[in-house]
Amino acid sequence: MTQVTAADVKELRERTGAAVMDCKGALAEAGGDMDKAVELLRVKGQASAAKRSGRTTSEGVVASYIHANAKVGVLVEVQCETDFVARSDEFQDFAREVAIHIAGSPWPPQVVSADEISEADREAERKVFEAKAKEDGKPDNVVERIVEGQLQKWAKEVALLEQEHVRSDRYEGKTIEDLRAAIASQTGENVRIARFARFVVGQE
Amino acid sequence: MTQVTAADVKELRERTGAAVMDCKGALAEAGGDMDKAVELLRVKGQASAAKRSGRTTSEGVVASYIHANAKVGVLVEVQCETDFVARSDEFQDFAREVAIHIAGSPWPPQVVSADEISEADREAERKVFEAKAKEDGKPDNVVERIVEGQLQKWAKEVALLEQEHVRSDRYEGKTIEDLRAAIASQTGENVRIARFARFVVGQE
Repeated sequence: MTQVTAADVKELRERTGAAVMDCKGALAEAGGDMDKAVELLRVKGQASAAKRSGRTTSEGVVASYIHANAKVGVLVEVQCETDFVARSDEFQDFAREVAIHIAGSPWPPQVVSADEISEADREAERKVFEAKAKEDGKPDNVVERIVEGQLQKWAKEVALLEQEHVRSDRYEGKTIEDLRAAIASQTGENVRIARFARFVVGQE
Repeated sequence: MTQVTAADVKELRERTGAAVMDCKGALAEAGGDMDKAVELLRVKGQASAAKRSGRTTSEGVVASYIHANAKVGVLVEVQCETDFVARSDEFQDFAREVAIHIAGSPWPPQVVSADEISEADREAERKVFEAKAKEDGKPDNVVERIVEGQLQKWAKEVALLEQEHVRSDRYEGKTIEDLRAAIASQTGENVRIARFARFVVGQE
């Protein structure tokens, strides 16, 4: 039987965020091979994330963040499955970090996920991109492809989950979805950003 | 010339919230009669409030309040005319007290003022009241009057400005509009509650 050291378990935990028992199991199964253990946990993690994402989230917290001399304020509702997790520091920290991101983002998100963009908003945006592409003298047969690409990029920009957290020093390019998946994995619960509001003084 | 005492000025300030110079002036004009001075200030106050209410409010603050184990959260934008007033403690306190009210109100407001209720919402409510009145066997010729009365009452219940502040011990039945008028008078600026959001976990 493979010897699983505490140092290996620690390293694996840091790399994956998985629970101690899962790290031990994965290291044993991988015969002590760290990269293989990471891979095993990732596959398992995706399986359990898929299972989790269908589960009901009726608990959670509302977090707020007030920024820039009270000129910008954000309210966000983040849901999970149990009150136990809702009360935990790491879950509440996550909710707060999401609020901080929404307040500070230079491209304030308009929806939580890209599939919430209304057809009307998408069409309005499409018209702008089309007009621009034609103005630039692009031939008709490529306009559609260009516009589709721009629309996908735009949808990502306005969708909270697709955005990289503004605190790039702390989160190194991770998106809000990356952080959501991490806290879901860490708590073992389905975590869902339900909604948010962002007020800027004088910009109704 | 009438002798205006510091004690009278203090009492008049407490009763009206007017500025020291205005209190002195009103007491002198009223020949030292306290009730007459209150009346003078009230008339003057209404005149200046009417003047104020047309002025542009491009400054202000966003305030938040998180309640009940982070299960309820409120964001509110309150506007005024200058950044100087926006930064003042009394203005920020007012914004916070409005947020506290919205969070704690047993009848969560749906709009800032009654005239913002959409025609569709009003009609839906009218139908409910009509059905109820007919069910109660009220004769047709009085149903309309009853329903009108109930609609007016309902509009007041869902409009933030019409509600009595939940902290009844502190505000003794004063409505949010009373408090708004008081801070407008105190600061000498047009003060406007622009918008609010209220999130309750699990109640989208």
